[in-house]
Amino acid sequence: MTARPALARRALAEFLGTGLLVTVVVGSGIAAQRLSADVGLQLLENSTATVFGLAVLILLLGPVSGAHFNPVVSVADAILGRRTRTGLPGRDLAVYIVAQVAGGIGGAVLANLMFQIPTAISITERVTAGTLLGEVVATAGLVLLITGLTRAGQTLPVIAAAVGAYIGAAYWFTSSTSFANPAVTIGRVFTDTFAGIAHTSVLPFLAAQILGAAIGVAAAVVLFTPSAPVGSHPAAAVSKETLA
Amino acid sequence: MTARPALARRALAEFLGTGLLVTVVVGSGIAAQRLSADVGLQLLENSTATVFGLAVLILLLGPVSGAHFNPVVSVADAILGRRTRTGLPGRDLAVYIVAQVAGGIGGAVLANLMFQIPTAISITERVTAGTLLGEVVATAGLVLLITGLTRAGQTLPVIAAAVGAYIGAAYWFTSSTSFANPAVTIGRVFTDTFAGIAHTSVLPFLAAQILGAAIGVAAAVVLFTPSAPVGSHPAAAVSKETLA
Amino acid sequence: MTARPALARRALAEFLGTGLLVTVVVGSGIAAQRLSADVGLQLLENSTATVFGLAVLILLLGPVSGAHFNPVVSVADAILGRRTRTGLPGRDLAVYIVAQVAGGIGGAVLANLMFQIPTAISITERVTAGTLLGEVVATAGLVLLITGLTRAGQTLPVIAAAVGAYIGAAYWFTSSTSFANPAVTIGRVFTDTFAGIAHTSVLPFLAAQILGAAIGVAAAVVLFTPSAPVGSHPAAAVSKETLA
Amino acid sequence: MTARPALARRALAEFLGTGLLVTVVVGSGIAAQRLSADVGLQLLENSTATVFGLAVLILLLGPVSGAHFNPVVSVADAILGRRTRTGLPGRDLAVYIVAQVAGGIGGAVLANLMFQIPTAISITERVTAGTLLGEVVATAGLVLLITGLTRAGQTLPVIAAAVGAYIGAAYWFTSSTSFANPAVTIGRVFTDTFAGIAHTSVLPFLAAQILGAAIGVAAAVVLFTPSAPVGSHPAAAVSKETLA
Repeated sequence: MTARPALARRALAEFLGTGLLVTVVVGSGIAAQRLSADVGLQLLENSTATVFGLAVLILLLGPVSGAHFNPVVSVADAILGRRTRTGLPGRDLAVYIVAQVAGGIGGAVLANLMFQIPTAISITERVTAGTLLGEVVATAGLVLLITGLTRAGQTLPVIAAAVGAYIGAAYWFTSSTSFANPAVTIGRVFTDTFAGIAHTSVLPFLAAQILGAAIGVAAAVVLFTPSAPVGSHPAAAVSKETLA
Repeated sequence: MTARPALARRALAEFLGTGLLVTVVVGSGIAAQRLSADVGLQLLENSTATVFGLAVLILLLGPVSGAHFNPVVSVADAILGRRTRTGLPGRDLAVYIVAQVAGGIGGAVLANLMFQIPTAISITERVTAGTLLGEVVATAGLVLLITGLTRAGQTLPVIAAAVGAYIGAAYWFTSSTSFANPAVTIGRVFTDTFAGIAHTSVLPFLAAQILGAAIGVAAAVVLFTPSAPVGSHPAAAVSKETLA
Repeated sequence: MTARPALARRALAEFLGTGLLVTVVVGSGIAAQRLSADVGLQLLENSTATVFGLAVLILLLGPVSGAHFNPVVSVADAILGRRTRTGLPGRDLAVYIVAQVAGGIGGAVLANLMFQIPTAISITERVTAGTLLGEVVATAGLVLLITGLTRAGQTLPVIAAAVGAYIGAAYWFTSSTSFANPAVTIGRVFTDTFAGIAHTSVLPFLAAQILGAAIGVAAAVVLFTPSAPVGSHPAAAVSKETLA
Repeated sequence: MTARPALARRALAEFLGTGLLVTVVVGSGIAAQRLSADVGLQLLENSTATVFGLAVLILLLGPVSGAHFNPVVSVADAILGRRTRTGLPGRDLAVYIVAQVAGGIGGAVLANLMFQIPTAISITERVTAGTLLGEVVATAGLVLLITGLTRAGQTLPVIAAAVGAYIGAAYWFTSSTSFANPAVTIGRVFTDTFAGIAHTSVLPFLAAQILGAAIGVAAAVVLFTPSAPVGSHPAAAVSKETLA
């Protein structure tokens, strides 16, 4: 067992990673809205940039802080790793969440600055029964994915690419365009542009995300109990090689 | 030889995986249709989301159930592995197919719910001589691909990415947009949106898919006999490294 | 040294691979032209499908035949491997080229059939000074890429993804949309659709491709002499790990 | 410690790599502008081709020269590697920069030739407070990414894909479309097309890039000190496997 990097360094990584993730989401949303007329095309440009940006940030900062960039991922990590004492301790968890939320806000402001748009509170209401269900599904899937890939022993480059790809799909298959992240949701309040979200929509979105995360954790526990033998099926056998 | 996960867990993985695959296909189709005007752009958004979603689902659930998500893939697995007793036994095969079809229907309903569209039977007729040939080609290619990569010993991340990429191409190079999957075909009956298919088109599509799967199995047997020596050609030599 | 698969099996792989590559190019071109109005968007749909299809075909058939799918690649392989007796012998080379050209034609006919378009000779003239220079550049880059990656010992999944990505770029950065392949060029004569090429343009394109291939081989010999020590630069050191 | 390839060969690789990178950027920009009407779609075509082209060039030429293709990357390499004597020596650095700038100009001219456009000086002014901030952010991120991935011991294929993906995001999330490279900036003066930049914008862009590179180096030193223990967090543990 090796020591973790100092908490301050990990907090910086979470601040930077969450921040730049929001900068990518908000900035590419502004660029898309300025340059394209078709709303679907705008979303395709926005989601493509996010796939690339998110995967790269996880790959880069994973070795420093684990690259959570998301309070529900940090909480899931703390809960699932409690029994084996490999999860985030309570104090670290609090620091992670503060760094993530601060990063999310900072990232939105940075995007506004680059595009010379005054920072303002978004007026885009996003809450409907459908979008809340979308957030539940999107967050459950995200937490299941991260937990499952980690338990199966996939490498960091594979996990990074998979999480980016997942969000690229979830932009489109959920009705909420998949926020799935409380820190990013709060950060996106601070831009009145394509990717913004009204502050009145935040609490319902956060509640849906927390519910989704709980479902994701439960699904991961059922499907990927650490002691579960891996199947002898050819495809499963292949995957074991990657665990070796 | 390790034990396989319990059948119930594998069935859950097949149900979830096939279900979420249909949710991705149907949900992103609805979003694309709402947001974009150009039909080709709608299909590009739909196919891009599917590439990402399918690859991620295979990567995530491969270690649990083999990530078939497709009755013809499960049947091919059972047939090709019979001699070496590594294929799915008959009872497992039946459970897999039931889980896949139930998942496919559930996935369509979930997408309808997220986008607040009533679940209704599709009226999109898709059968022509051309689309049936397209389904034969698409399914033959899919079965050949999965069998060939498994026999060549590729790792799960590579197989997952390759199957996603294959479907991304087949959306475009076949005239049917490549269903290539009986469970997904049945599921897509239950949404009267972009990705829907009329129930009257289902049986011809299933027949074409079964024919295609048979051709794919035959081609795989000819090209990838397990005992075939791998060539000394540089590119082949490279590939052997990945098998080591 | 292991034996190569039988020549007949390798010829079948070259026939199938080149054929399906042309089916992807032609088929996705027809779909794009039918579904989208903007010509650039049509080309983006066409090039995206080709990136996916080409990478998958190389990955699948590389272990069987080396996945050349291209007469100039086979010729380069024969020439560069002559001294070390690892290249294609003369008889194999002739069989490869016949299989590739027959595949290319068959692939165009299959695409026409799927989209229920009569097979007809294309009337799309493509020769200008600019497009011929484009073919020289595109083919030189392709041959340099394949040779360089092989000499550097990259794995098949990496080579497959890289060749697909290269063609995805070359569709756009060359003025000819990058045919870069005599067998594919001949095959694309047999469809009067988006991806077709008039028979009168074939010979100049082939001449440009052969010139480009010669330049690519020369560049590869200069940059990647097999005995060249690999640098101690960090990035180079990293790459050596992948060669281990 | 192995010897580096001869400086002449490395200079040729930097010339070719930077040149072809600019050919990809400029050429795909011309094609996009000719074929598409929507400016955002043009940028999507341009950025997609660049992602593919840049990743392929780094993968191909990394083993020869380290694949910098960028004066600020070479300078960062020289500075960061000075203490351990693994960085570029002064004479090599000068040769690299000359090769990169010459390549950048040659690449723009080649693109103009392929598309039969006279080489002319761009008149596209790009300087605003926002775009300069964009260049600072884009270059800081690029230098941090390359340094961090190298220090974490990622393999060349992963680094190549990540740098390509980063630029694909930065085209969209920065307001400047992310030049982030003095040699490419100078090269893009020599084409009066989509990707061109007026010579009057060059010096401010270079100043912003140098400032960004300094920030990127500082961030990398803080986050990735070579002696820093890698964390015991699951995701970090996974990443250590890739370093083994």
